[in-house]
Amino acid sequence: MSNNIISIAIHGGAGTLLPEGISTEQEKTYKSALSEALNAGYSVLEKGGDALDAVETAVKSLEDCPLFNAGRGSVFTANGSHEMDASIMEGLNRNAGAVSLVQGIKNPISLARAVMEKSGHVFLAGQGAMDFAKQLEIECLSDEYFFDQYRFDQWQTVKNTDQFQLDHTSKEHKFGTVGAVACDIRGNLAAATSTGGMTNKKFGRVGDSPLIGCGNYANNQTCAVSCTGSGEYFIRSVVAYEVSALIEFKNLSLEEACAEVIHKRLPLLNGDGGLIAVDSKGNFCMPFNTAGMYRAAKNNRNVEVVAIFS
Amino acid sequence: MSNNIISIAIHGGAGTLLPEGISTEQEKTYKSALSEALNAGYSVLEKGGDALDAVETAVKSLEDCPLFNAGRGSVFTANGSHEMDASIMEGLNRNAGAVSLVQGIKNPISLARAVMEKSGHVFLAGQGAMDFAKQLEIECLSDEYFFDQYRFDQWQTVKNTDQFQLDHTSKEHKFGTVGAVACDIRGNLAAATSTGGMTNKKFGRVGDSPLIGCGNYANNQTCAVSCTGSGEYFIRSVVAYEVSALIEFKNLSLEEACAEVIHKRLPLLNGDGGLIAVDSKGNFCMPFNTAGMYRAAKNNRNVEVVAIFS
Repeated sequence: MSNNIISIAIHGGAGTLLPEGISTEQEKTYKSALSEALNAGYSVLEKGGDALDAVETAVKSLEDCPLFNAGRGSVFTANGSHEMDASIMEGLNRNAGAVSLVQGIKNPISLARAVMEKSGHVFLAGQGAMDFAKQLEIECLSDEYFFDQYRFDQWQTVKNTDQFQLDHTSKEHKFGTVGAVACDIRGNLAAATSTGGMTNKKFGRVGDSPLIGCGNYANNQTCAVSCTGSGEYFIRSVVAYEVSALIEFKNLSLEEACAEVIHKRLPLLNGDGGLIAVDSKGNFCMPFNTAGMYRAAKNNRNVEVVAIFS
Repeated sequence: MSNNIISIAIHGGAGTLLPEGISTEQEKTYKSALSEALNAGYSVLEKGGDALDAVETAVKSLEDCPLFNAGRGSVFTANGSHEMDASIMEGLNRNAGAVSLVQGIKNPISLARAVMEKSGHVFLAGQGAMDFAKQLEIECLSDEYFFDQYRFDQWQTVKNTDQFQLDHTSKEHKFGTVGAVACDIRGNLAAATSTGGMTNKKFGRVGDSPLIGCGNYANNQTCAVSCTGSGEYFIRSVVAYEVSALIEFKNLSLEEACAEVIHKRLPLLNGDGGLIAVDSKGNFCMPFNTAGMYRAAKNNRNVEVVAIFS
């Protein structure tokens, strides 16, 4: 399958991101964080590393950055905690791992990978997933690490109301998720997705990010996909696997399949958001039906993109 | 879409169910429980009711029966509790609801429906889902209601070990899930799935049953599907939506799509189990690649099946 192409694409969420809603300085900051994550993942691929390691590395970088709603930058839930979800999938064997509603885990994406490799299961949630993390001595950190004044202020505006919010301010309506997809030198694919959920969320809501086939999917025969958007619609549309199914069963190209899902099928349910995808020929695609999406991609054919607006 | 056909299919789990492993008396008991659930759902359809009400009614009947691993008959987890998962989906609008890791809920399928209709979300898990249930005054019962000597004895054989078990004894390897799919007089489809998980399970393991696209899916344009089997493989294969995608994108018939998935694609990952499916023409299909599956189906064309073995 390999054409000696390596490529990686990442996202940091989609939404009504408009040039007028962000200062030049902020734009620079975001782009520099995206570049850093992109190149962290890319350098794994460049050294002949696995797509799986590349996507984990890139997502860890995004989780460690307080700008994005995942890991360290996770938003506050209704009771002032941080509940995080993540999933990872390997295209070669379709192995997968996912965690949901975990607290205090520095890198949920690495816990998802540990679930895939060491639990005998695909999906662990809540206290059970945290017990598993403890048993494996996965890095846990106190609430302080996850504290961010901006996120805290976001929460204060809706605290004690029935409102839950995506990661947004009045100017900004944004789906807070991060993700990475990659194709390594052997033509193996992988996808990783991680999120800090919704501000003031209650009732243990689970979005599409930890759900295999919905927010995350990888299959060497078709593509690797990571999504960001209104999670409920992405679940009901089974978006990530839908892209794969259009390639496999309808012989669409990666670009055609992505466009079909994001611009035609998902809007039928009023779903908004975007996704990133790669195939084993090294093609990548980053469609979204919102005003913008934090995104970046790079391959060894001299393509490098870092962008926010459409 | 309607051809004045109504049909319903249900399952109570698949596995190495062999005639020699079960007495004539036990076989009668299981078949009578299946008949009861089938007819409870069918009578909703017969009165012109909605597919959604029919599948909820049938699954509630299976949840209330201690013979099946769901609701009242749920197996014991590692700490001696019962953690249940369920999901429901409506084919007309692809609305969906799901709950995972809930305890003490008499009918998890009705809680999944309440999530779909009243939460603004698709998927709630753990304590949050139970808080939601409490707020809606969904019926909760004490541990006593869920106690069953047979399940308790199953647990005792593996308690304090690292083993987790599907719903099985030494003679029997069985996937404990129940489900229903239906087509109503208007050609609307619905699917419902519910499970009590795995004996001695730890770490908040979530299987395919509550995952839309994996263990449960409904779309009027294609089919309604409920699965039972080795959950991890059903997740990695996105089984329920895969059947739908083969119908929509490859123009396979319901029967061809079900056979392709259960007898060809799922075995590639070594996945075993089965599913039930209906389409909006009233066709139904109940394939499995295990020795048996508790199953039953009925339509208004004089077809009525109640079976266990192949």
